[in-house]
Amino acid sequence: MTVKPVLPALKSGSWPVLQPGTVWLVGAGPGDPGLASLHTLNALQQADVVVYDALVNTELLEWVEPGTEVIYAGKRGGKPSLKQRDISLHLIELAQAGRRVLRLKGGDPFVFGRGGEEALALHAAGISFRIVPGITAGVAGLAYAGIPATHRGINQTVLFLTGHDQSGETPTEVDWAAVAKASPVIVMYMAIKHLDQITAALIAGGRRADESVAIITDASLPHQRVVETTLSDAVEAVVTHGLKPPAIVCVGPAVDLRQTLQWFQDESSGDAASPEVVPLDHGAG
Amino acid sequence: MTVKPVLPALKSGSWPVLQPGTVWLVGAGPGDPGLASLHTLNALQQADVVVYDALVNTELLEWVEPGTEVIYAGKRGGKPSLKQRDISLHLIELAQAGRRVLRLKGGDPFVFGRGGEEALALHAAGISFRIVPGITAGVAGLAYAGIPATHRGINQTVLFLTGHDQSGETPTEVDWAAVAKASPVIVMYMAIKHLDQITAALIAGGRRADESVAIITDASLPHQRVVETTLSDAVEAVVTHGLKPPAIVCVGPAVDLRQTLQWFQDESSGDAASPEVVPLDHGAG
Repeated sequence: MTVKPVLPALKSGSWPVLQPGTVWLVGAGPGDPGLASLHTLNALQQADVVVYDALVNTELLEWVEPGTEVIYAGKRGGKPSLKQRDISLHLIELAQAGRRVLRLKGGDPFVFGRGGEEALALHAAGISFRIVPGITAGVAGLAYAGIPATHRGINQTVLFLTGHDQSGETPTEVDWAAVAKASPVIVMYMAIKHLDQITAALIAGGRRADESVAIITDASLPHQRVVETTLSDAVEAVVTHGLKPPAIVCVGPAVDLRQTLQWFQDESSGDAASPEVVPLDHGAG
Repeated sequence: MTVKPVLPALKSGSWPVLQPGTVWLVGAGPGDPGLASLHTLNALQQADVVVYDALVNTELLEWVEPGTEVIYAGKRGGKPSLKQRDISLHLIELAQAGRRVLRLKGGDPFVFGRGGEEALALHAAGISFRIVPGITAGVAGLAYAGIPATHRGINQTVLFLTGHDQSGETPTEVDWAAVAKASPVIVMYMAIKHLDQITAALIAGGRRADESVAIITDASLPHQRVVETTLSDAVEAVVTHGLKPPAIVCVGPAVDLRQTLQWFQDESSGDAASPEVVPLDHGAG
């Protein structure tokens, strides 16, 4: 028998109420359930239907009330994922049936999460919605790897990008030369598939081939893995270490701070001989 | 008599314990207390000293246990803020005295939050630390203004930058021409002071003078204000509307989605005649 969670009292008001016939588009955070927000917990406790994505940690679904319907809307077992249009239509139907609908998305709904498309569809159907931001994997994955997304003396800009467009190809509208020059630290989502083209484009745009890269899989989860490599060796590192999505790839000198700031004990932690930890050795021939 | 908050049970383990003599660097989120994470609540319930910044919503400090010492480390009433070095030394002293130290920072500690510097100082002093990411104002401010940070057909990259460096001047190491080309959507922190130079640099870098800009003050709070303007008119809009920091400035076509996606009732909401809402009129001469 678990104790039911209790939200803290709000001095400034009361917790928002998920009304029947409305939809909340909610970020679940990157994986670690402790990174879910209080609004997310509040939403889980009120929803009578939850529509969730592949990247949501299903541990969060334990927090719903008994009788809540839980619907999976992601990719599984090689089957194609539901089309975005189908998901939006489903959300509309559930709301029109008077349900309290929680649309739970991994990370943040508006950071490479397609939440804007779902919100537009809801608006067009005349359905009220609320957006609840979440902690995005690009920020949290770096933090759990001991890499500051920004750091004094390193960067005054940080750029996030997606490694493939909606068709699954390398983003065609990205000016890679400008990206290479715009930010010392580049954080990439879904970049494993086209990492060869992306790293080549960044090097062609002026980034050093031996620049530090960290590849973080399953960010913020106990089975998180972090592999340190370089721009020129990153593609090989993916193969050597058998890295699979979901992954965040970070390019830039901030990666080197991991040697000092690593605090999270993940699967790739341990002694220096661990094959997962590849210390950088810029001096080696 | 308020009911004490209870965290949900974790199927995968137990909530982390803030040990005496250690420091947690924790993101408080952007302002709305509901955007604080469960880890943040867990930290507040365990700390015996909290050192917090100016941008932390003090409502969160109500959630500490009785007897917890609460120390303010930000700017107030025109007095200069504590120097970063002094804050780091203070954290070290508190930890060395065997305290359970919660360092609570607005937004995310690693996104323009100088958490990396504090973590390096703790490491150098041999003090164990944990990083708890938070929802950053750049993401949440946009979401509460109805602006997706990324949106299909608009952008595959999003760039965050700080509008002044540690000396308070416009960042000198930013390649503004590259920034202008690297990302259709640019999200700026602390950009009000040098907005004249920044907007001029972006226009010189190729961005349209009539490109949409949203200026969001007090992001995610009930007194949030959002002013829509353009790159060429942004400086004047700050004066006309009396906008004060803390502010997030968003440049790019995603701003136009606000006309459809605005969901949060803030101080600048209301009828179209409200002086706070300046509808874009690209067609007007």
